[in-house]
Amino acid sequence: MPDQIHVLVWGENRHEQVEPHVAAIYPDGMHSTIAAGIAENLGDRARVTTATLDDPEHGLTEEVLTELDVLVWWGHAAHGEVSDEVVERVHRHVLSGVGLVVLHSGHWSKIFKRLMGTTCSLRWRNAQDRELVWTVDPTHPIAGGVPSPIVIDSQEMYGEFFDIPAPDELIFISSFTGGEVFRSGCTFRRGNGKVFYFSPGDQDYPVYHHEDVRRVIANGVAWAHNDRPRALPTVLRSETDDLGNGHGQPGGHGHVSVE
Amino acid sequence: MPDQIHVLVWGENRHEQVEPHVAAIYPDGMHSTIAAGIAENLGDRARVTTATLDDPEHGLTEEVLTELDVLVWWGHAAHGEVSDEVVERVHRHVLSGVGLVVLHSGHWSKIFKRLMGTTCSLRWRNAQDRELVWTVDPTHPIAGGVPSPIVIDSQEMYGEFFDIPAPDELIFISSFTGGEVFRSGCTFRRGNGKVFYFSPGDQDYPVYHHEDVRRVIANGVAWAHNDRPRALPTVLRSETDDLGNGHGQPGGHGHVSVE
Amino acid sequence: MPDQIHVLVWGENRHEQVEPHVAAIYPDGMHSTIAAGIAENLGDRARVTTATLDDPEHGLTEEVLTELDVLVWWGHAAHGEVSDEVVERVHRHVLSGVGLVVLHSGHWSKIFKRLMGTTCSLRWRNAQDRELVWTVDPTHPIAGGVPSPIVIDSQEMYGEFFDIPAPDELIFISSFTGGEVFRSGCTFRRGNGKVFYFSPGDQDYPVYHHEDVRRVIANGVAWAHNDRPRALPTVLRSETDDLGNGHGQPGGHGHVSVE
Amino acid sequence: MPDQIHVLVWGENRHEQVEPHVAAIYPDGMHSTIAAGIAENLGDRARVTTATLDDPEHGLTEEVLTELDVLVWWGHAAHGEVSDEVVERVHRHVLSGVGLVVLHSGHWSKIFKRLMGTTCSLRWRNAQDRELVWTVDPTHPIAGGVPSPIVIDSQEMYGEFFDIPAPDELIFISSFTGGEVFRSGCTFRRGNGKVFYFSPGDQDYPVYHHEDVRRVIANGVAWAHNDRPRALPTVLRSETDDLGNGHGQPGGHGHVSVE
Repeated sequence: MPDQIHVLVWGENRHEQVEPHVAAIYPDGMHSTIAAGIAENLGDRARVTTATLDDPEHGLTEEVLTELDVLVWWGHAAHGEVSDEVVERVHRHVLSGVGLVVLHSGHWSKIFKRLMGTTCSLRWRNAQDRELVWTVDPTHPIAGGVPSPIVIDSQEMYGEFFDIPAPDELIFISSFTGGEVFRSGCTFRRGNGKVFYFSPGDQDYPVYHHEDVRRVIANGVAWAHNDRPRALPTVLRSETDDLGNGHGQPGGHGHVSVE
Repeated sequence: MPDQIHVLVWGENRHEQVEPHVAAIYPDGMHSTIAAGIAENLGDRARVTTATLDDPEHGLTEEVLTELDVLVWWGHAAHGEVSDEVVERVHRHVLSGVGLVVLHSGHWSKIFKRLMGTTCSLRWRNAQDRELVWTVDPTHPIAGGVPSPIVIDSQEMYGEFFDIPAPDELIFISSFTGGEVFRSGCTFRRGNGKVFYFSPGDQDYPVYHHEDVRRVIANGVAWAHNDRPRALPTVLRSETDDLGNGHGQPGGHGHVSVE
Repeated sequence: MPDQIHVLVWGENRHEQVEPHVAAIYPDGMHSTIAAGIAENLGDRARVTTATLDDPEHGLTEEVLTELDVLVWWGHAAHGEVSDEVVERVHRHVLSGVGLVVLHSGHWSKIFKRLMGTTCSLRWRNAQDRELVWTVDPTHPIAGGVPSPIVIDSQEMYGEFFDIPAPDELIFISSFTGGEVFRSGCTFRRGNGKVFYFSPGDQDYPVYHHEDVRRVIANGVAWAHNDRPRALPTVLRSETDDLGNGHGQPGGHGHVSVE
Repeated sequence: MPDQIHVLVWGENRHEQVEPHVAAIYPDGMHSTIAAGIAENLGDRARVTTATLDDPEHGLTEEVLTELDVLVWWGHAAHGEVSDEVVERVHRHVLSGVGLVVLHSGHWSKIFKRLMGTTCSLRWRNAQDRELVWTVDPTHPIAGGVPSPIVIDSQEMYGEFFDIPAPDELIFISSFTGGEVFRSGCTFRRGNGKVFYFSPGDQDYPVYHHEDVRRVIANGVAWAHNDRPRALPTVLRSETDDLGNGHGQPGGHGHVSVE
């Protein structure tokens, strides 16, 4: 099926290996549970694969990224072990058009901080708060098919101030038992790529088994998919009356490469 | 086909009746040319009909609007003849989820001013300027499949300051021979409805025969379509621990109606 | 002092007249308490006066508005009694450059709905919730000098979905005891005017005596003040090579009036 | 004067040393001309100093940055010679609250790319285009006191697509003789810092002697100044019912440091 979205769910896959209570919740790894939720919602529209930190080059080779449409990222304990070279590679592919969905503790991943330019720090507490996820942009496709609020009975608290650029679109705002609030669903366009950050989900709680959370992640994947030809935005010298072109290359969307 | 987008192109249809040079460019009326461009691009995805000012209730009855997905609006000389009652009706349906694509001189229509809350005034000149339409949001679906810039050889000039709210998304910026610039492609979300304003197009120029302009308008229609159940956002009294509900009605997206 | 900001606090002044418990909280009227909070914070920088619904023309004559820099609006039970003519007058002055600070139940005032173009509806409950007001834009001058969160021990709940256009700047998000969230501090630029909406405050609670709430309202007044010459944005016909001008009038910011 | 804004204009200062025609336009260096324009407009409100690439640590030591309010950046030919360590230091200080004004070819500086997270690439041509700078946000303080358009008779062309995140506020759009457009005045909030990018200005043209350009840069400096206490946003563990605090440190704006 030529129109299928190729999705890769990247998981750190460390908590599951060393913490029995995490393995009990996610026996096949968190990445597998997340991938299953996407496949369940997108069906034939998507082809979903997984990769983990311990794969060669973390499973994120040039070949893999070239074939990819949307990358979903979950990491937490081992952000520092992700190689800088791979982060630069992923960054280049996102700016060239690969969609990126960053989940929960991925807020502090190298790739998210690289794209945001800020500390991406926040307030947190692991104390079984109830999280309510309220829709504030009811027309957005990412909010389709889920109630407002989504009720997550038990979850880590993430609170403001969340040090990100003002999102292009703010879709969800969460509250927690303690009274904290969080911009929990945000979109950002960077280069030719679309980025969605969604905070619900943690290794200590079965959040990725939650039907509505799975639906939002799948919606995010569909939204982040961009079917234009891949190109890294590049400085382009443009002659007068040579509109849309530069150095003889064909034009289009200003992302023509020049040497 | 249950998934077809039902599109209605509304045209004022006055210039075509009284000005031979306009009739020569648009022999079936501007609305028909605009409708043909949408049908040509969306094919089976859309069912496209037209209505004009002189139809009973301007062709915008409660029944028509209830069945509609996206309304495309072109008006110019007779904005004042559009009945206030119909404008309020269209406004209510847009806030309930009908998509709206406003073209060119529609910037000064009652419905666009009603939705924007500003004067929607601008700078203009009718002197055969060349318009260049540059994409500044290359990831946006509305910019799909068109070059940057779109070159329109001869066109009315619309320039800044364009008195609109800052758009949610700025997709296109135009320049003109005289050096003026204009935010020519803008999106706005209002209530449960999505609004796209696109400025190229005028009765004195064959702009709606331009392949790229037709593609953008069709893209705008597809984007403005929102398949959620229709509902006007309504004040909702909500009891403690009655999350997502109000007065016993079912919840969902905060647009529950109450009596 | 020529640089003083002239501020007018407009109050509906009805609850105070008929409900003893409101009069007990606000013995001089809510507008007086709000005005005192602004004066206390801005000192010599502002000259603060008040007007109420029952004043002739609601105290909002052409003369008053022409002299004004910033209008602060509180209304609730009697929105429908505000004359449409006065609303159109205020609307014109805001688009011409008068700043507007809309408080709490003013979300449903004619002037706010006129400027927003949406229903401005929301979720609510009057049940002594605790409101926490979190800063999400720590660089914004309106958030200066207040803690995050501001704690309001007892307050009416306002919750999402709040049917407003996406704000230009989202400064505060509130949570309530029941778990609801609300975009409680938002800015909007409309024409040449700046609008700030701030939701804390209600007739049944002593919120306008709260030191931090008073500080935010005063900050909002200072922010909404715009010292440019007043002008309503107007359609302007502009000749080629007559940059910045139209019909012989001097240019500047595109808000030149033409006849 | 305790309330003075301390401004540092940083200049690469290379073209001036090796190209006689640049030295002829800017005999004291571009940084000195830029600094003079700021001082001329802000008067006693600002204390303006300069530093250049060849100063020890580029003149951007920890001590200098700690005392600074706003940094103005001009670089072009030698972006690669700016030390990564200094860039990280400036980045940290901007996120902590130092204002940053980036000029023209500074779009490709390490610090701007670090803050934006994108390539910051664009279209360009050095062919003596006329640049017109149109105001699209007439209420913004940065647009105060200048005409729309600002006319720059001769200037390098910078055109779209400009690969930046959608700006928080778009203040100016430029057009050029060739018909290109550019988002020439943009604001971005990052952490506790405010960033203004303004494109007019080049070593080959006397743009920094232009009265209106000098006014905009000075306005940008005044806007970027943030008088709150400096703090880098930091991850904060927060106990239930310990609102606004974390690990015993005092709260405030969510940017409390923790160890």
